[in-house]
Amino acid sequence: MDLAYSPTQARLIEAALTFVEDEVIPAEPVARDEAAARPPEHQWDRLPVVDRLRDTARELGLWDLWVPEPWGQGLGALDAAPVAEASGRSPHLAPTAMNSIGADVGTMRLLAAHGTPEQQEQWLRPLADGTIRSAIAMTEPGVASSDAHNIATQVREEGDELVLTGHKWWTTGAMAPDCAFLLVMAQSAPQAMRHRQHSLVIVPRDAPGLRISRNLTLLGQADPIIGGHADIVLDEVRVPRANLVGDWHGGYSLAQERMNPSRLLHGLRLVGVAERAFDLMAERVQHRVSGGRVLGQHGLVQEWIGRSRIEIDQARMLALRAAWFMDRDDERTATAVSQLKVVAPAMAGAVVDRSMQALGALGVGPDTMLPELYSYARMLRLQDGPDEVHLLAVARRELRRYS
Amino acid sequence: MDLAYSPTQARLIEAALTFVEDEVIPAEPVARDEAAARPPEHQWDRLPVVDRLRDTARELGLWDLWVPEPWGQGLGALDAAPVAEASGRSPHLAPTAMNSIGADVGTMRLLAAHGTPEQQEQWLRPLADGTIRSAIAMTEPGVASSDAHNIATQVREEGDELVLTGHKWWTTGAMAPDCAFLLVMAQSAPQAMRHRQHSLVIVPRDAPGLRISRNLTLLGQADPIIGGHADIVLDEVRVPRANLVGDWHGGYSLAQERMNPSRLLHGLRLVGVAERAFDLMAERVQHRVSGGRVLGQHGLVQEWIGRSRIEIDQARMLALRAAWFMDRDDERTATAVSQLKVVAPAMAGAVVDRSMQALGALGVGPDTMLPELYSYARMLRLQDGPDEVHLLAVARRELRRYS
Amino acid sequence: MDLAYSPTQARLIEAALTFVEDEVIPAEPVARDEAAARPPEHQWDRLPVVDRLRDTARELGLWDLWVPEPWGQGLGALDAAPVAEASGRSPHLAPTAMNSIGADVGTMRLLAAHGTPEQQEQWLRPLADGTIRSAIAMTEPGVASSDAHNIATQVREEGDELVLTGHKWWTTGAMAPDCAFLLVMAQSAPQAMRHRQHSLVIVPRDAPGLRISRNLTLLGQADPIIGGHADIVLDEVRVPRANLVGDWHGGYSLAQERMNPSRLLHGLRLVGVAERAFDLMAERVQHRVSGGRVLGQHGLVQEWIGRSRIEIDQARMLALRAAWFMDRDDERTATAVSQLKVVAPAMAGAVVDRSMQALGALGVGPDTMLPELYSYARMLRLQDGPDEVHLLAVARRELRRYS
Amino acid sequence: MDLAYSPTQARLIEAALTFVEDEVIPAEPVARDEAAARPPEHQWDRLPVVDRLRDTARELGLWDLWVPEPWGQGLGALDAAPVAEASGRSPHLAPTAMNSIGADVGTMRLLAAHGTPEQQEQWLRPLADGTIRSAIAMTEPGVASSDAHNIATQVREEGDELVLTGHKWWTTGAMAPDCAFLLVMAQSAPQAMRHRQHSLVIVPRDAPGLRISRNLTLLGQADPIIGGHADIVLDEVRVPRANLVGDWHGGYSLAQERMNPSRLLHGLRLVGVAERAFDLMAERVQHRVSGGRVLGQHGLVQEWIGRSRIEIDQARMLALRAAWFMDRDDERTATAVSQLKVVAPAMAGAVVDRSMQALGALGVGPDTMLPELYSYARMLRLQDGPDEVHLLAVARRELRRYS
Repeated sequence: MDLAYSPTQARLIEAALTFVEDEVIPAEPVARDEAAARPPEHQWDRLPVVDRLRDTARELGLWDLWVPEPWGQGLGALDAAPVAEASGRSPHLAPTAMNSIGADVGTMRLLAAHGTPEQQEQWLRPLADGTIRSAIAMTEPGVASSDAHNIATQVREEGDELVLTGHKWWTTGAMAPDCAFLLVMAQSAPQAMRHRQHSLVIVPRDAPGLRISRNLTLLGQADPIIGGHADIVLDEVRVPRANLVGDWHGGYSLAQERMNPSRLLHGLRLVGVAERAFDLMAERVQHRVSGGRVLGQHGLVQEWIGRSRIEIDQARMLALRAAWFMDRDDERTATAVSQLKVVAPAMAGAVVDRSMQALGALGVGPDTMLPELYSYARMLRLQDGPDEVHLLAVARRELRRYS
Repeated sequence: MDLAYSPTQARLIEAALTFVEDEVIPAEPVARDEAAARPPEHQWDRLPVVDRLRDTARELGLWDLWVPEPWGQGLGALDAAPVAEASGRSPHLAPTAMNSIGADVGTMRLLAAHGTPEQQEQWLRPLADGTIRSAIAMTEPGVASSDAHNIATQVREEGDELVLTGHKWWTTGAMAPDCAFLLVMAQSAPQAMRHRQHSLVIVPRDAPGLRISRNLTLLGQADPIIGGHADIVLDEVRVPRANLVGDWHGGYSLAQERMNPSRLLHGLRLVGVAERAFDLMAERVQHRVSGGRVLGQHGLVQEWIGRSRIEIDQARMLALRAAWFMDRDDERTATAVSQLKVVAPAMAGAVVDRSMQALGALGVGPDTMLPELYSYARMLRLQDGPDEVHLLAVARRELRRYS
Repeated sequence: MDLAYSPTQARLIEAALTFVEDEVIPAEPVARDEAAARPPEHQWDRLPVVDRLRDTARELGLWDLWVPEPWGQGLGALDAAPVAEASGRSPHLAPTAMNSIGADVGTMRLLAAHGTPEQQEQWLRPLADGTIRSAIAMTEPGVASSDAHNIATQVREEGDELVLTGHKWWTTGAMAPDCAFLLVMAQSAPQAMRHRQHSLVIVPRDAPGLRISRNLTLLGQADPIIGGHADIVLDEVRVPRANLVGDWHGGYSLAQERMNPSRLLHGLRLVGVAERAFDLMAERVQHRVSGGRVLGQHGLVQEWIGRSRIEIDQARMLALRAAWFMDRDDERTATAVSQLKVVAPAMAGAVVDRSMQALGALGVGPDTMLPELYSYARMLRLQDGPDEVHLLAVARRELRRYS
Repeated sequence: MDLAYSPTQARLIEAALTFVEDEVIPAEPVARDEAAARPPEHQWDRLPVVDRLRDTARELGLWDLWVPEPWGQGLGALDAAPVAEASGRSPHLAPTAMNSIGADVGTMRLLAAHGTPEQQEQWLRPLADGTIRSAIAMTEPGVASSDAHNIATQVREEGDELVLTGHKWWTTGAMAPDCAFLLVMAQSAPQAMRHRQHSLVIVPRDAPGLRISRNLTLLGQADPIIGGHADIVLDEVRVPRANLVGDWHGGYSLAQERMNPSRLLHGLRLVGVAERAFDLMAERVQHRVSGGRVLGQHGLVQEWIGRSRIEIDQARMLALRAAWFMDRDDERTATAVSQLKVVAPAMAGAVVDRSMQALGALGVGPDTMLPELYSYARMLRLQDGPDEVHLLAVARRELRRYS
């Protein structure tokens, strides 16, 4: 047992933290200003500051860490973990800069493992190069999409084409014009058994019949840097059959395969979210005075600081453990990831909330990242399966050991 | 001891609930659409739907309930309590419709008790008539304004004028053109003892030297219905000495006098916030299916429902108790209000949060009031004194009983 | 709506608090010493100090408050509520002194309402006079007895006799020789529908075939003052048919009838438990020094004080509301009682726990009542139905309103 | 970074778990019966079953793991960690069997590092051999002993003797006749600076003037296996000057040196406590039926299972991290140990509490270990410094990083 970071980890964490602290965080207000200055018809274009940061990330070797070789660096989960955490300190701008937005990473890994050579050439390569982006169209309005049974978008074969009809929303990233395609989960065999009902299809964002009806604000945030969260109607959208990813009716297992790496990535990022909020709190309470003492001398504020530090450190250990299991294909991976899924979003939300309280009105207003950090953490209590689903999954696996 | 509503309460609660459920809540999307359709230069104008609702509120006898006679109905705290709760179900639109926005109510009560006849004629009457609105300029950037010592805006006498210089923010309502004046808390005697340092001054919103620099979003919400939250610079703003409210250097006690009624009103409103979120949750879980059962049959969801119901009912009782003490000028009023201040915002935030989780992605997006309810509740953990200040105040009063 | 205590309540609460503070609490160490000095063969005899306290309680008009007329004072739930709370400050000795141990009160009310004149003469009168005590034999080992279906003790008719066989435990009070009889819940019709399976039978404690096998310690406490918690084997125990209470097969509804008054009584008592623990904490933190300051000046300790006060006051209001509903036979009684059942035991446990932490090693040792208060509160999270059962009952009633 | 157990750890954990599950746990009722059968005058004698278990522990190589060479095996913190955890499953009997009661281990390490050769021969060797036991006399009644300033027992030099007078309590183990000596912390220089006020003295349990006045029950538990918790009066007790451990006035730093290993050992043991309670809960809910389903199918019960598993695993990781730092003399050791001290006792208490609730009345009675596990965990929220002290210590170290 050895808890020291490996040389690879140590090098990467140093590079990533420096990049995030020295380049990305100072660029946040620049991004906000650039976004605010865009005319409405260009409001989802890629920001100049993002291109500058991407160049720096490439120079520092922080590009495509999670993307399999030969398209990316193909690092293991544990080696890349500290970078994922560091990027969580600026959870929209840093992943965008490092080409590690969750949806893109998941899509690239999926195409690397299951895409045809043509798909890899047409979609994976430009994604890995950063010339395009992608989005996952999974969630649907009106139902609990964490239960795949509830997915109602239909896809059928017609000659050499696949035809899709349905309604997706919370398709993160799809508002942006540089999002070239969507990976759409659709029902191809409604009567089949649970795991053989769905197919996964690449749908170009400009396909006829695909209509982006609006952006969904997330707790009031438009999230322009990551391309928003699109509400999308698919009305008899036709794509070549070659756009099928993996097997016909085999979409469910592909989607599942995406999930644990995505949850791990998000769990790590949430540790970074919490560290950012912790920084803001710990700095602030040194200076803000109430009742004749700086806040940092008040017992209740120290309690926030102490609990936050403990909870962050515990969540990081859960995440590193999950990464370690994942690298070994250990059968405990799923449980470890579920544990992380239960802990990390709630922990990050709690730390952000304490930080807001410590900052007072400043903390709930537009002048710090706390509102965006809060929205990000809050969404992740729902995304990739609500916490409760994972909590009960942990419980059921435990109970099986005793029956 | 009698826990039944009085006939006045029963009549008012019936009228108020009907108004809110049948008129106000259906008007929320109308207000949203009207707000979105305004050109930028009119984005803070009063909405047509608000004027329609105000007419209805007047007809139903729900206008100016908290405003002292002869300007308003002058109801006692307990009699008006159920209406305050009902208005919390739509916490921006309903109070606006009933002329019971907290800042306006506080200002009207203050001017009724301490204003000169001229002030009452010039400012209180149109406020009570609803032809103008007002705002309280108390909080300042960079400091913990819950501690009056930290207030740095200066006011000095020059001949027949008062001259104000400083920086205020989170001046709720002041973005709206129908906000005719601000009640500004400023330091008039920095060296005096704590309770004789400040003066309270009426400053017309169009006074030269007063500049509204921007609106502050609250967790991403612009809050257009209530007139936003203004960031305001006062640069040698001159007003007639007749604009002084109460005594010179007597502002602190006036501000304190405002506080407990304001906290009570907000506490009651938060019970309504929670009831609204509870409604959304309880309706939704009857229909949303996960794992083959509607959510409402899952034990964890039932736990949310059960705990929320209990917490809401307990908070309402705390609020009614505080109102009962207040009507009697009971010495326990301050503690009862502090207890409510600790409980109600956290309770409402928790119920809204559970409701969001039950609604899934719908709950964090723009299609329900939950994000606005959340922001409203979150702000009130800071406004009128952070929860922690009140918690410790409760503790210290207890400890005095034992020393 | 009027939150003031009625004259009856005010008089009773004054008398009860004085009795508990001036007579009962000083008698606690006397009782402990008397109990420790008894020889093993008399270890469950009534203590001399109890008889002295009972005389005082009678003189003060605090005897048999909850017992229906003509046997007792027959006070309403709300009128007697403050006395129940006061007695919770010494939750074993005070109820014993006032003849208001929960099991006895329940049994007396049951016999007053459903007993035959002979049963009332033979069992109810001496119970009300305090010459005997009783016990309820409901719970059985190995099953969740909150679900009546699980009760396995059998009773059958044989001629003029009823014959009982089974195993009961946690029969509180039955270790004491002055416990003259047990009210035994037994299955008389296992195949009948759920509500017509059981019968309730008076079984003299000295009936042949009834064997008290041991006392069950409750979290290590023997609870000698209330007569312990007996483990009892019934082996073909024969009693006259006249010992049947109510209808044959009608035991379930009688047992249910007992429950809500019992839960209310215990809920009120738990408020008193918490007040006692609060007193100990608040007194102690004025004197105990850590880090150069008395504990009461530490923010975290003030947080305990503040939260405890708020939680206690909220629980009391829940209890008074439930009593108010009960006196009116309001249909909301069951839900209000369930809310109290969820809140009060957990609240009392939490306050006791904080008090322990504030007292340090003193608080977990034998020199204060805190360990007994803790055990008492902990048991009540299980007794009269586990908290979770009531929480879900509250939820289900809410959900019905929305379906 | 490698999270696999080392071969040493793997071998030890296998041996320790087997020993605890197959030998110690089955011996718990034997120990209880043996203790109950002792006549009063021998009630603190060592139990025969303990001697049998000790023989087995020696054979299995589980003896004196934490005792430095040459007296014991001198294992590092990380290597011995899994054994400490396993022993927590039976937190009195297993450590007694493995000669790893916290006080003894601490004393042996102290004497190994700072004892004179004579002290090592006279006291350390028989302790390591298991022929005697020891106790730490630190805590005093009436004050917060976590603050060394509060220690009032006096020691003075008189010729070749040291003379001690004072009052100690919660001297765990000292009721047992095989406890040969106490390590007494006493004030030797009341006027000196904080860290040079105290001296540490070996006092034979049979020294004239030392009187053991009573055993202190811990939440009702007498704790006979570990030798109870003695209340001790020292009245001019004289010991040879050779009984001074370390430097005169140097007791404070020696006591501090003991603390972190002790906290780590207890933190690990609490993980085992929680695992034992978890086992009882997980087994029970497979069989206990309520509302027509086994408890394990109820959502709320699954929530207990899931949360408990996550909290246990997180606490274990904290403990292993602290052990890893300790083995490396890392400067983060103190903070890591404080984090563990905050987390582990509360976690174990919460898991035991859930287990009790799942077991119902069985769980609070005398037939399972849960009440003793609860008392053990509860005490450790106070022992070795209350949780709050450690929480604030964590906070203050964090705040220093930002100032």
